[in-house]
This record gives sequence, structure tokens and C-alpha cells, in this order.
Amino acid sequence: MYRTHTNGELNITKIGTKVTLSGWVHRSRDLGGMTFIDLRDRYGLTQLVFNMDTDSGLCKQARELGREFVIQVTGIVTERSNKNLKIPTGEIEIAVTELKVLSKSITPPFTLEEKSDGGDDLRMKFRYLDLRREVVRKNLELRHRMAQETRKYLSSLDFLEIETPVLVNSTPEGARDFVVPSRMNPGEFYALPQSPQTLKQLLMVAGMDRYFQIVKCFRDEDLRADRQPEFTQIDCEMAFVDREDILETFAGLIRHLFKTVLGVDFEENIPRMTFKDAMERYGCDKPDIRFGMEISEFTSFAKGKDFKVFDSADYIGAICAQGCAEYTRKQVDELTAFVQKPQIGAKGLIYARVNDDGTIKSSVDKFYSPEDLAVWASTLGAKAGDMIFVMAGDKKQTLNALNELRLEMGSRLGLRSKAIFRPLWVIDFPLLEWDEDSKRFYAMHHPFTSPMEEDMEYFTSDPGKVRAKAYDMVINGVEVGGGSIRIHDSEIQKLMFKNLGMGEEEVKRKFSFIMDAFRYGAPPHGGIAFGFDRLVAMFAGLDSIRDVIAFPKNNSGKDVMIDTPGPLAQEQLDELQLRIDKKEKQ
Amino acid sequence: MYRTHTNGELNITKIGTKVTLSGWVHRSRDLGGMTFIDLRDRYGLTQLVFNMDTDSGLCKQARELGREFVIQVTGIVTERSNKNLKIPTGEIEIAVTELKVLSKSITPPFTLEEKSDGGDDLRMKFRYLDLRREVVRKNLELRHRMAQETRKYLSSLDFLEIETPVLVNSTPEGARDFVVPSRMNPGEFYALPQSPQTLKQLLMVAGMDRYFQIVKCFRDEDLRADRQPEFTQIDCEMAFVDREDILETFAGLIRHLFKTVLGVDFEENIPRMTFKDAMERYGCDKPDIRFGMEISEFTSFAKGKDFKVFDSADYIGAICAQGCAEYTRKQVDELTAFVQKPQIGAKGLIYARVNDDGTIKSSVDKFYSPEDLAVWASTLGAKAGDMIFVMAGDKKQTLNALNELRLEMGSRLGLRSKAIFRPLWVIDFPLLEWDEDSKRFYAMHHPFTSPMEEDMEYFTSDPGKVRAKAYDMVINGVEVGGGSIRIHDSEIQKLMFKNLGMGEEEVKRKFSFIMDAFRYGAPPHGGIAFGFDRLVAMFAGLDSIRDVIAFPKNNSGKDVMIDTPGPLAQEQLDELQLRIDKKEKQ
Repeated sequence: MYRTHTNGELNITKIGTKVTLSGWVHRSRDLGGMTFIDLRDRYGLTQLVFNMDTDSGLCKQARELGREFVIQVTGIVTERSNKNLKIPTGEIEIAVTELKVLSKSITPPFTLEEKSDGGDDLRMKFRYLDLRREVVRKNLELRHRMAQETRKYLSSLDFLEIETPVLVNSTPEGARDFVVPSRMNPGEFYALPQSPQTLKQLLMVAGMDRYFQIVKCFRDEDLRADRQPEFTQIDCEMAFVDREDILETFAGLIRHLFKTVLGVDFEENIPRMTFKDAMERYGCDKPDIRFGMEISEFTSFAKGKDFKVFDSADYIGAICAQGCAEYTRKQVDELTAFVQKPQIGAKGLIYARVNDDGTIKSSVDKFYSPEDLAVWASTLGAKAGDMIFVMAGDKKQTLNALNELRLEMGSRLGLRSKAIFRPLWVIDFPLLEWDEDSKRFYAMHHPFTSPMEEDMEYFTSDPGKVRAKAYDMVINGVEVGGGSIRIHDSEIQKLMFKNLGMGEEEVKRKFSFIMDAFRYGAPPHGGIAFGFDRLVAMFAGLDSIRDVIAFPKNNSGKDVMIDTPGPLAQEQLDELQLRIDKKEKQ
Repeated sequence: MYRTHTNGELNITKIGTKVTLSGWVHRSRDLGGMTFIDLRDRYGLTQLVFNMDTDSGLCKQARELGREFVIQVTGIVTERSNKNLKIPTGEIEIAVTELKVLSKSITPPFTLEEKSDGGDDLRMKFRYLDLRREVVRKNLELRHRMAQETRKYLSSLDFLEIETPVLVNSTPEGARDFVVPSRMNPGEFYALPQSPQTLKQLLMVAGMDRYFQIVKCFRDEDLRADRQPEFTQIDCEMAFVDREDILETFAGLIRHLFKTVLGVDFEENIPRMTFKDAMERYGCDKPDIRFGMEISEFTSFAKGKDFKVFDSADYIGAICAQGCAEYTRKQVDELTAFVQKPQIGAKGLIYARVNDDGTIKSSVDKFYSPEDLAVWASTLGAKAGDMIFVMAGDKKQTLNALNELRLEMGSRLGLRSKAIFRPLWVIDFPLLEWDEDSKRFYAMHHPFTSPMEEDMEYFTSDPGKVRAKAYDMVINGVEVGGGSIRIHDSEIQKLMFKNLGMGEEEVKRKFSFIMDAFRYGAPPHGGIAFGFDRLVAMFAGLDSIRDVIAFPKNNSGKDVMIDTPGPLAQEQLDELQLRIDKKEKQ
């Protein structure tokens, strides 16, 4: 037996006990006649003590141990004179009588402390060392706990976890599929699922009633900082439900996770906001409602004062940054540069300070009288000491810029604490989005999303007006989940495909299995999928999902630790009847 | 709201309650003035009653409903006159007052009863209908329960479920990999994991201490009846353990599953048998110990009686089939034909009947005296009324034939009940297997398996003699899991690769990441993987794993329901910089 206890469990109640421990040499220090070693494992640290007077041989041996050596020791639990009450084992130490080196270590390429001196690339290459750091390990422990609690909650509600296949056909999610050549069927390919969307709908047709799965999904997209080619979803579907049932069930899941994992209780129901409201009040469909600073529209009264920028604008909107009247010229210039970044693309930023005496000083005093500016202030509820920011232009773009400015100001004013969580359901999304380039509609969620009954009158005549039974769960401005009630009527599904400009041939080729299935008694159904990596990252207070994934890929889709992807042997290509047809780089 | 209750929950305590139910029309019958419908969902059946006298319009509507229509009804829970005590809802029925058709159905291509009239191919194509059958659905419910209980047990022991990547590099399991071309890295490929073997070992190096995962694995093999290209493993690894710790921990898992899922208690510890014993006593490394009928070796005393077949044999062995002395000539001929099948390949079958009076009549009386035959009987413990079967030849082949005969006789004698479970640990496997064709050793488990310390003296001099710290969990003759203590010393690992005939270059290319990892303090570790599909099938009393998989593939690796694999669009191939290079069929 390698150990009688872990390094996290011994305390003052065990004084005098003979124990055997194993683990890694975390730190060691020699103090005159004594050598102290912090022995580490997943469960904690335990201090070992070696005494030159008692056993000089053993003590010398201990002095030879390097960082990250794996050792086994036997000794007696002893009360420490110099207690460390910050850790559970801090009141005791082990007076070691036997020592065995289980495995040596060369010097790690970076320090394995809370703040490591290793760069990203190095830590990725030696991920197995990076994972030894408590801060990284804790993320995986959190992930485990969240997965177990998710399963517990859903199982208690009669959801069945059902594994759907990984080798499937193309899914209609719009992104690129990863494909897998079939050796047994040369020239043919499987695709890896972008989500089990159609399969979970078939499970509803199959009468499974309530399905979930914590499941890997795959998208072959160009990777941005926080995308991974494989990611994990909490994928759910229910039969005989309408929107209200889903919102209740999954608000329950979110409450359960916050309560059991973080000890956070939401006293009130999770609020709901329509897509339209979200866009007009926050300029985006995933508002961060940890703080107010809502957008007000100025279009109706800010025009007609000879200020060309506003007069020619489609839309004028503003926010009020409380207590920012004192912002310096430099600070305002910074914010102007911020909204003018190409990613945001605003032309400029107008401001108006509400002075302590109630007078208002704006950057457009030439055009606007004190009375005009008083209307601005009262519209926003701006008070003495506040700063008003106004932007104008194309409505969509300006709302987006106001959203970015609002978030930036929220951050600057410390209104976006990671310790506060404000979940929100965004509902009543449009069913379709018009794409000006291809002159056609695209499904805002996916083509199986049900339109709202009350909008069905426009479904063929004016499809852009139709709202969907779709919903997103947004927490602190991050979309953590989304879903919809699905179409379960093959006639409506056909019309939907038509609205998306898909011909009968294409529908048949891509979706005949689900259209067929709907002919055999499909129950009303709907579902949701949560981005599990994202949710865990949020619980961990992290911005990047990479930190909550054991072995993530880098931005080139590579795992530099195991060194993949890589070349294939010629025999393998031959067996698959494939040839690489590499284009010259342009 | 589509329902107030499911179809499985209403009973006599709810008489008089107004309820709303939804589900599928399972059966319907008209009896004079009444129409009865069995409404079905995942939870059960509820009888609906429509009365021509009370509401002829509604009753007529009900008579129009076809099988598998999805309907919603509202009505009053009423006591049945004609009770069915076999189902929980059998004492009540619903006197329907409102009926709504949610979805129509055309006639299903096969009946959705316990015994369906649909052939395999048809049921696979319409798997979403096949899954509506209670017998199929129950398998997925069982699978769900087993997965949850597995997680519960392992979590309670501090195992962390950690997701390992699906896009990896080739694994050294020996089977063919499925590969995934990388668009971002043209000409390069990922592989889908045959198992997370090396990654879980890296998690041990990373200090995760106890890992598990219920995980999809992939093998591109030619499919036999009971293989699937993707299958599910309960994959586990522990650090600071030796064999004993693993055997105890996972005997515990198996006991927990049998107890919580099937209510089966194993009073005794799970027995252990060495590979050598298993081979000699049962002729195979996965003995079915639900019954005895062990093999005895006759080689030493059955030679030298001028019976050429035996005299020229490397090995002679026998089993005793209790109470089979009465077997007819025809039955014995059948058994002879059975062992002569090419898959078994025995040359013939010698028998000896122990008559009621104690005399023995054999098929080789010419060569063997009554005294000789008495030795046969006493060696096997054969008694009056028993039948002795003897086979001879090459040792390995003959043991295999005796194993097959033993299993066949066990089945014929009803000794292999699916309601009885006899788990067994098979231990002390050889580390290496010699392959005569390629004149080299292969790893019996995989190249990371640790040799036994006491055999290390042969590790370089006579590697074929070395036993491994490997173990298999065998239940009722089926290998449901297997694993080993791993090598954690890079020097021993190097020797192991050398024994397998791998050059330094090859080792570096394939395994440098794990060899590197071992240089930074690798703890002693080991693990096990259970075939989850197989385990569920065993719990369900099924022979095929296909029945416990929601959407299995057929023997050509195809999913005929969603129609995959299929051709790829030219643009996709172009993006991947691949060309199909299809060989003419020979």
C-alpha cells in the first residue's frame, strides 16, 4: 500500500498515529538541523520533517530530493510548533522515519505555483505539469462537480441520459463539419456532430419524453481566442412541452447549479426580456444586467438643430455614466478611440457633463441650448456629477457601439463583479434573419425552430415579421444556453425550409429522415443546449474556456502536447482510398 | 400545458380528479357503445374510455384515431369495472370529455409490440419507431441508470470525471484508427481515440489521482455481429495503487451496480483465478464459472495404449457431462460435428459413458481396458449416468475445443441461466505474446502494462516468461473489463518497447510525449476499462450490444436511418485538400 492517508486529511486529532503518505515534493527548506518538505497531492499539502539529530542519514537523503520528486514516507503525526491555520493540515507535521523515492524528476520548465512563470505555449506543451498547479486543477474539480450536479438534477426529473452517435451525417448548424472517411465505404464520409439536434428530436419522436446528454460537439471553424474545435454541451430535449415548461425546468437547473456548487441563491425568478427590448435598452441580445446604464433613444428630439451628424443619422442613442462628469479630456479621448476601433466602428462620441450646479456642458454646445441638454439629462435621468455619452448613425451599428461603450463603462466603474451573477432569459427572437448579400433568409436559431402561433399569419406573407419560440439563457452578458420549441408538423417544417430558400430536392437529401419521422406521430417538443465549457468558466470566474478543459487545442487547432494533427502513413491513405492534394500556398 | 400527469402514474387514489394526458394511441377497441383506447407514453399505459351515450360526437372522433396518433385528452379518473392488476394504472380509466389530435400518424411499417413483426433492417431504418417498443426503451432506461450509478459510486470515492479530447493522435491499441483531416493543417490528420489510454496516464502524471470517464471510443475494424465502430467505455485510472487496490475498488463498482440496479447481492468476495489456471481448467482466459465441468488433463495416462490419435497428441484433455450417459448416437454425432466446425477445428470427439451399473462403455474400447477407463472416470470424478468427452491434439487448440464443448454442454444442460451472475477476476496474464508469423512479441494488453516485480529477472533474458500486473473482470464467461498496473519508470518503459521490437526512432515518434512526462515525477498508477455496452447488455440479459445503443450502426458501419456515411461535396474535399482515389473493385 502506497499510503494510509492523503495529504489533505491529517489533523490534530491524529497526533501520535503512524501514517504512510505519498506525493510530490512541492517545496523543501533546510533550517539548521532540520529539513522541511511540503508533500503535495490532489488533496492538499502535508509538512514532513527530518531531523539531523535523530537520523542524519535520512535527513541527508531528504536534502537530496528535488522539486517534483515522487516519494513515499512513513512517520508519526506530530503537533507543529509553528502552525499554519490557512490549510487543514497546518497544525501537524510528519516526523519521518522512512523515505522511499518512487520516481525522480528533472527540473520542471516552469514553476508550479499559483502564478506560474511559464508562458502559454510552454504550459500547453507540458499541460500535465500545468495541471499540477492548484489553480488549474481546481477548475477540473469544479467541472466534475457541475457535471455530476447537472446529471443529478435532470435525472431527478426523469430525464434519461442517452448517448447519440459521434459518427453521423452533416448537421444543419451552418458551421463547417469535421469529416471522417469511411474505409468500409470508400469515397464516403461520416461527419462529427455540431450538435445532436436532429437525433434528439428523433428521440422525442421515439417517445423518450425527456432526454439529456453532456456531449462533445465539433465545429471546424477558424478559431478565435475562445473557441475550441471540440466543445461540450449540456444537451436537452423534452416532449409535450411548450416554452413555459422549458423555461421553468431549466431555470431550475441553473438555480440548482448555483446553489449546490457556488452556494448562491437566487431569491427571485429569473427575469425575462424580449429580444426587442434587449436590443433597444442594451443594444445587444445578451445584456449584462448586473448594472443599469440603459440606452435611451434621442432620435426624436436631438434632430433639427443643425448638427449634421445627428440630422443625417438614422438613429441617435445615449447612455448616462453616473459620477463620471469629472472625466478628463484624456479619458474622453480614450473612450472615443475605443468606440472608433474597427471592430466597433463608431464615427465619434458626443458627451455632455452634468455639473455640480446642474448646468450642462457638452461637446456640441454650438448646436444645443441648455434647454435642449436639459431634455437629454431628464430623458436619461442624469443627475449632477453624471456624464452623458451620445452616438448616432445607422441604428444597428450605433446600438452595437452603445452596447460596447456601456460594457466598457460598466467595467471601468466596477459594476461587473465576477462574484455577482445575474441570469436572464431573452425570449421572442425573430425566426429569420435577412441576409442582404445572398438576398435570402437564414434561420436565427436553426431550421427546426417553431414560429409563434400568433405570428403564423405572416409565415408565408411576411416571414421576417415572425417571432420564434426561441430563448437564450444569458448570465452577466454571456450567452450560456439557448434553444427553442421545435416544429413537429411536417407541413410547417416544409414551409420553413421553403422560407429558407431550400428546394424540395435539397430538403429530401438533407432531412428526409426527420421529415419521414414526423409522419409517424411526432409529439410537440422543444429543448435547450448549454455551453458547458462556458458555464464552468463562468462559475470559475474565468474569461477563457481553455482553462476549464483538461487538454485544450491552441488557435491552430493543434494539441502541442500530444502533437496532433500529424501526417498519415501512406498505407492508411491507401486503405482509405484518399490522396492529399495540397495546394501551393498563395 | 399538455398534461397534468403521465400515463404511468394515475391510480385508485385519484378517482374523481380531472386530468389532462398526452401520448400515443397504442391500441383501441370498440365494444358496442364504448370505445377504449390505451394511451401510451414512456411511463406507461392509461385506458381512455369514450361513451356513445354520453357524447356520441366525441366517441365518433375517438373511433377515427389511428395507431400511433399523438393525442391530448382531458377527463375524469374513474374506477374500472374490469381491472388489470398487472399494470400500475390498471384499476382506473379516464372518462374523456375533451380530445385533441396533436399529430397524426400513417401506419407504422411494423407492429410496436413486445414481439415485433419487423425484420432487423426495417427496425434499424425506423429506429425511432423501434425505440417506442417497451422492450427496447427499457434497455436505454437501464443504461441510463447504470451510468448514473457508476458515476455515483466513483464520485463517492473521489474519482473525478475528466473529459479527454476526441481529436487526438494515433493510439497504440493495435486496431485501425478512424482519422479526421485537419482543414487548418492541410495534409495532416487527427485520429479518434481507440481509448484514452495515454491521456489518462498523463492525468495521473498531472496529479489528478483518481480519474474516470464514461467515454466513446472508436475502432475501424471489420464489424462482426457484435462490434460497433463506436462504443462506450467506463474508463478509470488511479495513482499510488498496486493491483490489490484496483481489484478492491472495482469489485466494489461491480457489486454496487448489481446491487443498486438489479438487486443482486454477492455475498462472497469476487473470486480470482490465474490466467494459467483458467487456461488449464477451462481452456480459455474468460471462464464461465456459473457451472463446473472443468477440464482434466489425460496426457500422462491416456498415451501408450496404441491409440494413434492420442499417442501422437501433444495434449489430451477431457470433461465430464453429468447425467448425459443416455445421449443418443445422434446427439453425440451432433457434438462431434460441433467441435469439428472450422471455427473450432477439432479432429474428433472420443466419448465414454458411465453406465448405471458402473461399467464404462467408450468409443475406444479397442484400446482401453475397463481399468483404463476407470482411471478416466475417477480423474474427472465421473459417476454413474455421466458422459466423458475426450479430445486430443495441439495443446492450445485442444483446450480451445474443450472450452467450446464445455460451453455447449453447459447451455444444453441449462447451466448458463441469464438470471445468475458469476463475476471472476482473471489475473497474472503473460506480459507478451509471441507471434510466430512476424517472429516478434506483442503486448498481450498494451505496451504500458507493468511486468510483475518477481518476474523482472527474465525481462531481458526470457521476456516470454514474464507475467504482467494485468487483470480482466469476467462475468459469465464474458470479458466485461480489463486493465493493468502501468509502467511508470521510463527506463522500464524503454525496455518494454525494445521487447516489442520498436526502435528508438519509432518510440520517439509515437510516444515521446509520455516518455517525456515520465521524466517529471510519475506516480505509480494503474487502471481499468469496462465495456459499457457489453455490461449493459449483460444486465439486460441480451446477447447483442446493439440493443442497448440508441442508434447503432449495421455490419457495414452504416446508420441506415440517418443515411451515413455519404458522399462529400466537392467544395468540402477542396477545402480539406483531399482527393478520392477510388480503386477498381477486384
